[in-house]
Amino acid sequence: MEAAALRDQAMHDTIAYDLVESLTMEVGPRSAGSPGDKAAVVWAVEKLKSLGFENVHTEEVDVPHWDRGLLNANIVAPFPQSLVATSLGGSPGTPAEGIEAKVVRVEGLVGLRALSDDDLGGKIVYVDHEMQRAKDGSGYTAASRIRSCAHYIAAERGALATFIRSAGTSEHRVPHTGSMLNNDIPPTIPAIALANADADMLTYQMQSGKPVSMYLLSTARQHPREKSANVVGEIQGQGDLAHEIVLLGAHLDSWDLGTGAIDDGAGVAIVTAAAKMLLDSGNAPRRTIRVVLFANEEFGLDGAEEYARKHTASVKDHVIGLEADFGAGRVWRFSSQVADDALGLVDAIHALLEPLGLQRGKNKASGGADLRPMRKAGMPVFSLTHDGTYYFDYHHTPDDTLDKIDRDDLNHSVAAYVTVAFVAANIMDSFGRLEPNTRRKRTCSAEDDSWVS
Amino acid sequence: MEAAALRDQAMHDTIAYDLVESLTMEVGPRSAGSPGDKAAVVWAVEKLKSLGFENVHTEEVDVPHWDRGLLNANIVAPFPQSLVATSLGGSPGTPAEGIEAKVVRVEGLVGLRALSDDDLGGKIVYVDHEMQRAKDGSGYTAASRIRSCAHYIAAERGALATFIRSAGTSEHRVPHTGSMLNNDIPPTIPAIALANADADMLTYQMQSGKPVSMYLLSTARQHPREKSANVVGEIQGQGDLAHEIVLLGAHLDSWDLGTGAIDDGAGVAIVTAAAKMLLDSGNAPRRTIRVVLFANEEFGLDGAEEYARKHTASVKDHVIGLEADFGAGRVWRFSSQVADDALGLVDAIHALLEPLGLQRGKNKASGGADLRPMRKAGMPVFSLTHDGTYYFDYHHTPDDTLDKIDRDDLNHSVAAYVTVAFVAANIMDSFGRLEPNTRRKRTCSAEDDSWVS
Repeated sequence: MEAAALRDQAMHDTIAYDLVESLTMEVGPRSAGSPGDKAAVVWAVEKLKSLGFENVHTEEVDVPHWDRGLLNANIVAPFPQSLVATSLGGSPGTPAEGIEAKVVRVEGLVGLRALSDDDLGGKIVYVDHEMQRAKDGSGYTAASRIRSCAHYIAAERGALATFIRSAGTSEHRVPHTGSMLNNDIPPTIPAIALANADADMLTYQMQSGKPVSMYLLSTARQHPREKSANVVGEIQGQGDLAHEIVLLGAHLDSWDLGTGAIDDGAGVAIVTAAAKMLLDSGNAPRRTIRVVLFANEEFGLDGAEEYARKHTASVKDHVIGLEADFGAGRVWRFSSQVADDALGLVDAIHALLEPLGLQRGKNKASGGADLRPMRKAGMPVFSLTHDGTYYFDYHHTPDDTLDKIDRDDLNHSVAAYVTVAFVAANIMDSFGRLEPNTRRKRTCSAEDDSWVS
Repeated sequence: MEAAALRDQAMHDTIAYDLVESLTMEVGPRSAGSPGDKAAVVWAVEKLKSLGFENVHTEEVDVPHWDRGLLNANIVAPFPQSLVATSLGGSPGTPAEGIEAKVVRVEGLVGLRALSDDDLGGKIVYVDHEMQRAKDGSGYTAASRIRSCAHYIAAERGALATFIRSAGTSEHRVPHTGSMLNNDIPPTIPAIALANADADMLTYQMQSGKPVSMYLLSTARQHPREKSANVVGEIQGQGDLAHEIVLLGAHLDSWDLGTGAIDDGAGVAIVTAAAKMLLDSGNAPRRTIRVVLFANEEFGLDGAEEYARKHTASVKDHVIGLEADFGAGRVWRFSSQVADDALGLVDAIHALLEPLGLQRGKNKASGGADLRPMRKAGMPVFSLTHDGTYYFDYHHTPDDTLDKIDRDDLNHSVAAYVTVAFVAANIMDSFGRLEPNTRRKRTCSAEDDSWVS
């Protein structure tokens, strides 16, 4: 059977590693609106063309352009210490003279909400929460919610700035950035993430019982918006189902601190390599396989939203979506969100993935952040879950570099993706449609803390 | 036997960890001549006094005061990339406009020496050498020699600046500083260490076959010299041998990037905790136990040299020296450099260490950098070698923080030190004297590459 042959062949391929090496080494950091972002679009068009994809083109996306600038953060008293820290994405800078203030420490959003304007007004708030390591990355849900909401709640109560313990699991002196966006409400106070060792230092000083004060200077700022692009390449289907689309996604942008190897160079490499194997197999698929390398996933999902807007008329033709955006660890679980009567088909695909050691997950897959707008419009999705045990050691940190990628683990992922993509593109059956999702966006209110989008 | 009882008791003590926690959290970085250095001296005097040591005092040491300033290093062409890098200790800064030049890559000092003035004049030289991981830290010999000599050889041939791959084994985005001093010859060109991932990037670009150019801006500079101090505390001996001294050393200074937890907060904690256990045992030792926390080990051994100068008259009373300056890993080897006829005594001490799993090393121990001047003047030494497998992941990097210390491993080390110190302070026999060492200092010449000091 051809899917099995492709699956086994993927284990010995070099294309995925070559792609992520080229992207990280020759483009490097590529945050939305930056020169690296524009270079990445040029890189992707050239790569998809040179690999032989059809209909290679860009689809323009309007993106924000935030600049981290310089940061100086230190504890002034009782024990002066310089801190390794970084601004969260979207943070405003400080006044030119910086901010010096007393510090109030709270544990998580519950601790923060328990304090009043009197407690927090004119203070720097330090929200301490240690992210839990987990294979499925589940500790990130709470940690990233603090990243989005702590500054918002603190600002409402008159705080001058927020510090959080990094929303990551690294034991090294690398801070973890990431979006602080809270729906469409612009942040009003600086928000900073501390490396874990530095959060330990601040916690130690707070627990000394002595008053703690900090100094913060940041030149972070928003530049005018820029043009970026989703980059698209296809393998055109043949026959009756050629108008139907199997969407393979990843995001081309990265944060600025690392070179975006695991987030999401690996994803770009995995889906492109899987599609390239299908292209080289010599048999045109029944459905069109569309690789979409999305613009600006990290700082607002602009590429994903623009794609859904632009392709409204053909949403129904998108029969399934699959995104790689959870690193380069080995894939260990295959899950879906498809119509109930398509679950037998999912079982059949899972049988092909069992030789790779994959478990069968629930029919509640998210499909990945970039697929969310299309999924909400009814497109079924698959998720191939990578082993995320160490993902948050590197994700959004300076440590997200090529050396963190293992070639065999990367190829194992390609094997899973090519298997799923082949079947999805060629099987006659349908995955059905999802009910359009009309749930409201989650806010930073306490009621929404456990509300899963 | 009392030594064995102390050894076993050490495994359940908290004093060592409390000391290194206090030093790293309340003083933090303490490079020679910096405000942290002065704070560390105050801290050490207060700690030794409050622990109950006798004759607690400082002995003034004149130290250099070098300031790393700000650094901006990036690859300009063919593929622009910002680099995570740091100045080596003692590096001059660049002109205000920075340095932009073509890059020449060489492998190690052999590669560097093979090139001429024509090859290197006006260029930035990149010396690539990957330090090897080893339990005994042996990979550091070659790596640190490159750190001291590459800039010197490159400058002689007209190079504008040198970059080296960090003399460390970290797989994380933390560069490794350390002294670039080459005897007493002042460095003349900037010398910079790249984190391993950044060295990989530069190597990749060099191997692309395209011309590579870099930009470097550094505000590093020397300030006027400052006063620091060796901090001394004792347990005075009783009886005929009370004038004899068992020297327990560690160094109080650290580099500026981390908080000096493993280098050498751990050493300060281990020897102080071992001495405190002897103090608390209630029996005065025969010989005086002297704890010396040396100034400025990292950037010129000023404290060690000043100690040897000041105590010339009593060198003969220093019957044995033992320094802790190789981190907080478990001790696995006990070695010596004593008179040949004292080797039976070393065997007897080793028998007490065998329950801790220690091997018996050769009679060629260095005793530690701070003991070198006294050893060269004839003082015998012991070495308790810590497991250095991961030491160079943290050593001299921002990652040298408290969280890298394991309490049980630290106590295991205290157990070994207290055992050795107890016997050395109470046994009637002598370790003899060493022949004064009159060997010349090693230069950066090729003949001296394999010359072991």
